[in-house]
Amino acid sequence: MQAEIISVGTELLLGHTVNTDATHVARMLAEQGLDLVRVQIVGDNAGRLEEAVRAALERASVVIATGGLGPTDDDLTRETVARLAGLPLEEDSGSLARLHEYFGDRPLPANECRQALLPRGARPFPNAVGTAPGCAVPVGRDQWILLLPGPPGELLPMLEAGVRPFLRELCGGVIASFMARVFGMGEGEAAARLGSLTAGSNPTVATYAGDGEMFVRVTAKAADHAAARALAEPVLAEVLRLLGHVVYGVDVPSLEAVVVAELARQGKSLATAESCTGGLIARRITDQPGASQVFGCGLVTYANEAKTRLAGVPEDMLRAHGAVSPQVALAMARGVRESAGADLGLGVTGIAGPGGGTPQKPVGLVYIALADAQGAWLRELRPQGQYPGRDMVRRLSASHALDMVRRRLSGLPVERWEEPGAASCLPGGQRL
Amino acid sequence: MQAEIISVGTELLLGHTVNTDATHVARMLAEQGLDLVRVQIVGDNAGRLEEAVRAALERASVVIATGGLGPTDDDLTRETVARLAGLPLEEDSGSLARLHEYFGDRPLPANECRQALLPRGARPFPNAVGTAPGCAVPVGRDQWILLLPGPPGELLPMLEAGVRPFLRELCGGVIASFMARVFGMGEGEAAARLGSLTAGSNPTVATYAGDGEMFVRVTAKAADHAAARALAEPVLAEVLRLLGHVVYGVDVPSLEAVVVAELARQGKSLATAESCTGGLIARRITDQPGASQVFGCGLVTYANEAKTRLAGVPEDMLRAHGAVSPQVALAMARGVRESAGADLGLGVTGIAGPGGGTPQKPVGLVYIALADAQGAWLRELRPQGQYPGRDMVRRLSASHALDMVRRRLSGLPVERWEEPGAASCLPGGQRL
Repeated sequence: MQAEIISVGTELLLGHTVNTDATHVARMLAEQGLDLVRVQIVGDNAGRLEEAVRAALERASVVIATGGLGPTDDDLTRETVARLAGLPLEEDSGSLARLHEYFGDRPLPANECRQALLPRGARPFPNAVGTAPGCAVPVGRDQWILLLPGPPGELLPMLEAGVRPFLRELCGGVIASFMARVFGMGEGEAAARLGSLTAGSNPTVATYAGDGEMFVRVTAKAADHAAARALAEPVLAEVLRLLGHVVYGVDVPSLEAVVVAELARQGKSLATAESCTGGLIARRITDQPGASQVFGCGLVTYANEAKTRLAGVPEDMLRAHGAVSPQVALAMARGVRESAGADLGLGVTGIAGPGGGTPQKPVGLVYIALADAQGAWLRELRPQGQYPGRDMVRRLSASHALDMVRRRLSGLPVERWEEPGAASCLPGGQRL
Repeated sequence: MQAEIISVGTELLLGHTVNTDATHVARMLAEQGLDLVRVQIVGDNAGRLEEAVRAALERASVVIATGGLGPTDDDLTRETVARLAGLPLEEDSGSLARLHEYFGDRPLPANECRQALLPRGARPFPNAVGTAPGCAVPVGRDQWILLLPGPPGELLPMLEAGVRPFLRELCGGVIASFMARVFGMGEGEAAARLGSLTAGSNPTVATYAGDGEMFVRVTAKAADHAAARALAEPVLAEVLRLLGHVVYGVDVPSLEAVVVAELARQGKSLATAESCTGGLIARRITDQPGASQVFGCGLVTYANEAKTRLAGVPEDMLRAHGAVSPQVALAMARGVRESAGADLGLGVTGIAGPGGGTPQKPVGLVYIALADAQGAWLRELRPQGQYPGRDMVRRLSASHALDMVRRRLSGLPVERWEEPGAASCLPGGQRL
């Protein structure tokens, strides 16, 4: 079944707003097995909107319009679509009651009431957050135009609560979908390992690149949920087998969420001493509600003086090896672990750039150390090829640090630091 | 002059990628005075792409296509547009030389060479980063189709170096544009203060909302740069006068960039002690290259024990007032300033939520303290209305902290902390 999206809003054409709505709707359409063939963006202009809807109806069974449902005069989508579909606007009592509830004791302004007018026969999608309900408008015998609000905070809950069940019913099937999240392997290598799995049609297996990570989605469609899961689960298991330990979770929000949850489960605590990442690891950990259970303190030891005073790195070590060295990373990890009384300590030191590199220690060189009661682990990131920029060096370094904690907590192999003969445990470093 | 954008790529229709390209191109079109009337997204499909280009050429003088210029078989844009414009593809020697340079000593694969084929008469835009050049293809006497690469890292430099000068020449005018960045005033109040200024047409004055901030752009068009500036500058001055101290800079990248630059200019240093912001302030400061000149150390004192051990907050103060209190924020700011030997110290403590609130200290309550040799300043953020979520509480708290430093460094008023009678200096708090 073919679908099209029409995004309505002059702010999109002026470049003031990124059109994330279309991305969210597109993803849901793909998950529900619809074939999105085109997206159009038009401004708050009735003539151009009408032209766009007409063109879309010539091609697609389902047209999804986002934006232009609000109470002001430039919100034209509802009126334009009703006129085009030849349906009068009628008051929807449920939507009106919801508006009264939203306004509580305050009087309900007349322009707000407009939002409870829906084209005759439309199926309303209640708005859990804002004032404008969405709806599915029938066009002729077998086409639908879905009207959805533009603000992402209103759109996203409505997609889940209203649109997904509607599409499921429309398409006569149920989707089961799993997302495996991967750190430490590129999309190219993952696709090569998955081989012919990605050519299947039900379940589909799709890889995509994230922000220094990658993801693999397995999606199956069947008559009911149990049958869809039964199709998807063996393929997911095969994906996990082929990719191995680089998969840090399935249907999890992020690497840091996995780390915080696993620390909490094991009743362990972590402390951090960051130089080049400058607080990024601490921030990612404390992004998680409940991080205080597992994270008591972090140090941002940017200056050498701070490394010595706060993390106990000996001054002569800094002089002998330099601040960017395996020794200093390890001393930071051990120092912060000890002073914080934590189970695990992380130390990160490197050259995020763009300045500060030397031939021996190029921009992008980063040492990440993890220490616990049993020993110490060290990862070296060494730039290969083009310098990816300060922001990417910092983000990847933070992700590697979190990945080392994850591996250690799960009993997976981590690069071991052997006290003397340190170089031998750094087989070429990780590709940055 | 009317323009349309066509974004090409199946990944956009599957929702794997957000279409930021269209936003960047849209912004540049607006800045150069072109009127963008429509954006279309199509997949890697020659028939649909051709249909989209034909439709756009019926409406617009300039059509900008992004994506589908690479070396693989599903990169169809160049061939499709050449066929549609009735122009043969010819080898562009400059683009070929650039490809040879990119590959260096490695052999140049045949499929890569395709990228140096441009429609006859096209004006090439060199690709400073990747392999596929862009170009402007003439269609008939007075229309153009611009072909640009899809990866944002390649598109953005080409927009500035190639497309902006091309559009400037095409439109026969020059744009002068200034962006005033605002923290601490909502878009609604700013628009009310600016009043009729936003109704002007040359210069235009437009407000838009950012991430907990807002921006005002002043854009003027004239025959040459000096004339455009002469139109824009008095209006910019009026914008700055009407908005006052909430404008933290004009044509600056961010609040943290202003703070780091001003610290460096004054030869001053800053140290931070963060609880609820969990390293976010340190991260934003160390995002700036050269931050090490002004920032030696930051503490993430999440646990009370860490507040005492690292920032010197007395245990009895924590017991008497609680960790989320003006007194503790001040003690953190003073403690980290003293231990780090910094000129300024910041302390932040609060309840980011979603858990942990009480009737007296609700979720979203945050105290931010700034200390220097002359005294101490305190800002209280108290949620009014709906709780905006953990992420927003943390981001706004970090921005308020940076704003206090900016104001203090610039000699602007900051909320003063008077030792006894503390409550009197907190007139209702800041709206979160």
